[in-house]
Amino acid sequence: MCPSRLVLEHVTSRWGVLVLAALLERSYRFSELRRTIGGVSEKMLAQTLQTLERDGFVHRDAKPVIPPRVDYSLTPLGTEAAEQVWALARWTERRVDAVQAAREAYDEARA
Amino acid sequence: MCPSRLVLEHVTSRWGVLVLAALLERSYRFSELRRTIGGVSEKMLAQTLQTLERDGFVHRDAKPVIPPRVDYSLTPLGTEAAEQVWALARWTERRVDAVQAAREAYDEARA
Repeated sequence: MCPSRLVLEHVTSRWGVLVLAALLERSYRFSELRRTIGGVSEKMLAQTLQTLERDGFVHRDAKPVIPPRVDYSLTPLGTEAAEQVWALARWTERRVDAVQAAREAYDEARA
Repeated sequence: MCPSRLVLEHVTSRWGVLVLAALLERSYRFSELRRTIGGVSEKMLAQTLQTLERDGFVHRDAKPVIPPRVDYSLTPLGTEAAEQVWALARWTERRVDAVQAAREAYDEARA
């Protein structure tokens, strides 16, 4: 698989989109982020964050305090990625009604 | 799954991205399109085109001639989708080196 394809898959993955969108607003602690996104398991969120951190999109800041505190934020590269993906996600939401109508027409013509 | 999520998956699917990008240039016959994209099976391309047609992004024009001739082109909605996705794909290609560098740094710090 070509490398840019893999980047595209990470940023458009189900949870990747939502993590990038949330972090575009502000930085989050893990548990806060999980509540904000909703419906994501602890394991899936940890995995998504790790993938985005490895790609250079997310910065993980572990504070040496008790109890441990970890903040997640976007890097400059991650902010670019989030803005691109968010534009596409917004377009999708804006046009989903037109797509639904097209699907119904398609299915009806073949019923 | 929410409906806009499904739209996002169709337009960012491996072959969906490439079909939309090709049709942004001009209309294609099936076999031409298959050659242009490269590496896609007949079955996968037919399935991708059908999904995009049902979503209202691709127009399928079957000419009543012998031998049969079928042209595929983008609808206005499909042109919008293609432009959005193409912007994201171009950004990904532009920044893939930065992502690769981030991955190497990440892996090295943990080796």
